[in-house]
Amino acid sequence: MYRTHNCGELRISHVGQEVTLSGWVQISRDLGGLTFVDLRDRYGITQIVFNMDDDETLCLQARKLGREFVVRVKGAVAERSNKNPNRSTGDIEIEASSLEILNASNVPPFTIENETDGGDDLRMKYRYLDIRREPVRDNLVFRSQLAIATRSHLASQGFIEVETPVLIKSTPEGARDFVVPSRMNPGQFYALPQSPQTFKQILMVGGLDKYFQIVKCFRDEDLRADRQPEFTQIDCEMSFVTRDEVLDTFEGLTKNLFKSLLNVDLPDFPKMSYDEAMERYGSDKPDTRFGMEFCDISQLAKGHGFSVFDDAEYIVGICAKGAADKYSNKDIKKLTEWMQRPQIGAKGVVNIKYQEDGSVKSSIGKFYDDETLMAWKEHFNAASNDLILILCGEKEKTQKQMNELRLEMGRQLGLMDPTVFNPLWVVDFPLLEWDEDSNRFHAMHHPFTSPKKADQERMLNGDHETMKALRADAYDLVINGVEIGGGSIRIHDRALQSRNFDLLGFTKEEAEEQFGFLLGAFEYGAPPHGGIAFGFDRLCAVMKGQNSIRDFIAFPKNNQGRDMMIDSPSRIDTIQMEELYLNSTAPNGEE
Amino acid sequence: MYRTHNCGELRISHVGQEVTLSGWVQISRDLGGLTFVDLRDRYGITQIVFNMDDDETLCLQARKLGREFVVRVKGAVAERSNKNPNRSTGDIEIEASSLEILNASNVPPFTIENETDGGDDLRMKYRYLDIRREPVRDNLVFRSQLAIATRSHLASQGFIEVETPVLIKSTPEGARDFVVPSRMNPGQFYALPQSPQTFKQILMVGGLDKYFQIVKCFRDEDLRADRQPEFTQIDCEMSFVTRDEVLDTFEGLTKNLFKSLLNVDLPDFPKMSYDEAMERYGSDKPDTRFGMEFCDISQLAKGHGFSVFDDAEYIVGICAKGAADKYSNKDIKKLTEWMQRPQIGAKGVVNIKYQEDGSVKSSIGKFYDDETLMAWKEHFNAASNDLILILCGEKEKTQKQMNELRLEMGRQLGLMDPTVFNPLWVVDFPLLEWDEDSNRFHAMHHPFTSPKKADQERMLNGDHETMKALRADAYDLVINGVEIGGGSIRIHDRALQSRNFDLLGFTKEEAEEQFGFLLGAFEYGAPPHGGIAFGFDRLCAVMKGQNSIRDFIAFPKNNQGRDMMIDSPSRIDTIQMEELYLNSTAPNGEE
Repeated sequence: MYRTHNCGELRISHVGQEVTLSGWVQISRDLGGLTFVDLRDRYGITQIVFNMDDDETLCLQARKLGREFVVRVKGAVAERSNKNPNRSTGDIEIEASSLEILNASNVPPFTIENETDGGDDLRMKYRYLDIRREPVRDNLVFRSQLAIATRSHLASQGFIEVETPVLIKSTPEGARDFVVPSRMNPGQFYALPQSPQTFKQILMVGGLDKYFQIVKCFRDEDLRADRQPEFTQIDCEMSFVTRDEVLDTFEGLTKNLFKSLLNVDLPDFPKMSYDEAMERYGSDKPDTRFGMEFCDISQLAKGHGFSVFDDAEYIVGICAKGAADKYSNKDIKKLTEWMQRPQIGAKGVVNIKYQEDGSVKSSIGKFYDDETLMAWKEHFNAASNDLILILCGEKEKTQKQMNELRLEMGRQLGLMDPTVFNPLWVVDFPLLEWDEDSNRFHAMHHPFTSPKKADQERMLNGDHETMKALRADAYDLVINGVEIGGGSIRIHDRALQSRNFDLLGFTKEEAEEQFGFLLGAFEYGAPPHGGIAFGFDRLCAVMKGQNSIRDFIAFPKNNQGRDMMIDSPSRIDTIQMEELYLNSTAPNGEE
Repeated sequence: MYRTHNCGELRISHVGQEVTLSGWVQISRDLGGLTFVDLRDRYGITQIVFNMDDDETLCLQARKLGREFVVRVKGAVAERSNKNPNRSTGDIEIEASSLEILNASNVPPFTIENETDGGDDLRMKYRYLDIRREPVRDNLVFRSQLAIATRSHLASQGFIEVETPVLIKSTPEGARDFVVPSRMNPGQFYALPQSPQTFKQILMVGGLDKYFQIVKCFRDEDLRADRQPEFTQIDCEMSFVTRDEVLDTFEGLTKNLFKSLLNVDLPDFPKMSYDEAMERYGSDKPDTRFGMEFCDISQLAKGHGFSVFDDAEYIVGICAKGAADKYSNKDIKKLTEWMQRPQIGAKGVVNIKYQEDGSVKSSIGKFYDDETLMAWKEHFNAASNDLILILCGEKEKTQKQMNELRLEMGRQLGLMDPTVFNPLWVVDFPLLEWDEDSNRFHAMHHPFTSPKKADQERMLNGDHETMKALRADAYDLVINGVEIGGGSIRIHDRALQSRNFDLLGFTKEEAEEQFGFLLGAFEYGAPPHGGIAFGFDRLCAVMKGQNSIRDFIAFPKNNQGRDMMIDSPSRIDTIQMEELYLNSTAPNGEE
């Protein structure tokens, strides 16, 4: 037997017991007559003491233990004279009577401590050492607990977890698929699912009523920061439901998870239309932990001879409360330069400072007299010492830029309270987006999303312009500016679905080839249905107040899609290629 | 709102309530003045009644409803005069006041009833209709419940569920990998995991202590009956454990699952060595619900002038209790022919009948006198009217053949009681198998399996013959002759692992390239560890007493690895091929 107890278990009540512990040597301290070893495992750290007077050989052996050696220790639990209140086992220590090295360890490339991680490359290569560090381990444990709580809640609501297949069919819609050549079907490929969308709809047609799955999904995208080629969703679908029944169900799930994992009582989730979110925050995933809402001054600001404003489609400002005296001209110049970076691409930032002494100072003072600017103060609902920042230009672009500026100001002014969680349902998204380049519509959510009931007739019979105005019965859950998930009421009518495929540029043949099974299913009693999917990795990160999803994934890939530990992807051998009827045309390919 | 209640919910206590139900039309019966509609959903069936006297229009509308139409009905709950005790809602019916068709349905290619499934091809193509049938739906619900119970039990034992990656690295060991070309790493491929074996070991090196995962695994095999290219495992690993601690843990899990899902109390699981299982049953997964154990008569039967026996390495018999008078010569001829099919390949079957009248009749009576055969009776522990069946030949081959014969006799004699579950741990497997063809050893379990402690020194220093006799610290769980899962204590020492790779024919470079990360991990404090994996699909089937795993999988593939519903795999377009740096060399390839 390797242990009678783990390293986080022993208390003052165990004093006098003979125990066996196994674990890793966190540190060994030689104090002459005594040698102290901190023994670590997943559950905690227990102090082991070796006494020269009691057993010199054993004590000398203990002195030689290196960091991360794996050992088994036997001994008696004793009360510590010098207790450590910061450690759950801090009242006791083990007076060692035997020591066995189960495995030695090289000196690790970084120490197993909370703050020393050796940098990203080393962490990923030696992930097994990184996982021994408490912050990473805690994240993995949190993820496991969150999954269990999710399943337990959904099961209690009558949801059935169904595993949908991983080897499915490639469809050109959406992001790129990862594909899998089929040896048994030469020249043909499976695809890995970007989501189980069509399968969960088929399950609704199959009468399963309430489906969920915590499921791996795959996207072959050029990886932006903090995206992974494989990611996990909480995927759900329900039959015979209206939008608000779906939202209530998953608001209930979310509240339950925050309560059971974090002991946080979330408020009821407000609903905001896409249009309103864009007008007030310039984003469909606004961080509503702070105000600084958009103030459209297009009417107000035009006609004063300032051509930049006069020529602009849209002029918008935000009011940073109490920030006037915090931002010197140099600070504002820095902010302007940040906004002018190509990623954001603003031309410039106009500022107005309503100063403590009642005066007003502005970068556009030349064009607007103080009286005019003081009138704007009211419009912005500004007070003394508030700083107004203004952008102008083409509306959609300017909204995006102002969204970035608002978030940056929120960060700089410390308005994003990490202890606050502000959930928000964003609803009533546009159904279709017109794409000038490809001269066709794209689905804003996905091709299976239903238009709102009021728009269904118009969708079937309307003209091109009508299509642009159609609203989808789609919804996103946003918490603190992060999109946790989204979903929609689906189309369950063959005619409507065919019409949607038409609008999205599918020929009849393409629609039939790719989604014939779903169109077919709609002819055999498809119930009204809708659903949602939460990004599970993202939900973990938001709940734990962390920006990156990486450390909630045991073995993440880097931005080139590589697993640095196992060194994958890699070449496969010629026989494998031949069996799959494949030749490589890669520049440095071996084939 | 589509419904206030589901179709399995209403009882006599609801009488008088106005309710709304939605569901599928199971059947509509026109009785002149009254029309009855059985409305079905996942939860049950509720009878709806339409009355010509009350509302003629509505009643006429109801008469036109076809099978599988999706409808919403409003009405009052009323007590039935003619109750149906076989239905949970059989005490009541709904007196309809409104009816709305939510979706029409074509006439389904098979009716949605327990016994009419239309055959495999139709079932798979119209899986959404098949899933509406109770037996299939019940299996999927059972699977979901089994997964929840598994997770709940393992979590209660301190296991953490960790998701390991799906895009990993191809290794030539074991079955064929499915591979995934990497667009971002031209000419390189990921592989889909055959199991998360190395990752779970890495998690143990990472200190996670107790890991589990219900996880999809993939094997590109020529699909024998009832194998699937993607299948699900309950995958587990533990640190600082001995074999018996692993077995106790998963015996506990298994007992818990049988109790909570089936209310079956399993007995303690006996342990049997591989050698003993082979001697007694000729199989490492014996069905121990019945006896009919092997009786080695090699010594006994030789030297009587019967050259077939005299020349045989191994002569073995089984005793079919009370079967002598059930098997005519014709029956035995049939059995012999069954054994002579190429799949089994027996030369012949010798029989001895100990008849009720005390006499003995045998196909080898020419060579063995009655006295000799009567002496064998004792050896077989046979009684009057017992039938002895004997095979001979090369030992290993004959054991396999006799295993088939024993199982067939068990089936024919009705000895496999479907209400009995007989679990068995088979332990102490050989570590290595010598393969004459490739002139190297194969791992009987997998390359990470540890030899038993007593054999480790011999493995490091022994000669070729010694290697053949090494025992692995490996174990299988068998229930009713079905292998539910298996596992082993793993090697955690770099030298031992390297030696194993040597024996398995890896060069140093191959071992380093494929498993360098694991060998590396063993140098940084790898703890002793071991684990197990259960076949989840198989466990479902065994628990429900079904032979096929197919109907525990929502969307199974056929024997050609095809999904008949979505028609996959399929060709992908040229642009996709180019982006992946691939050319197809398939005979009818489009490229």
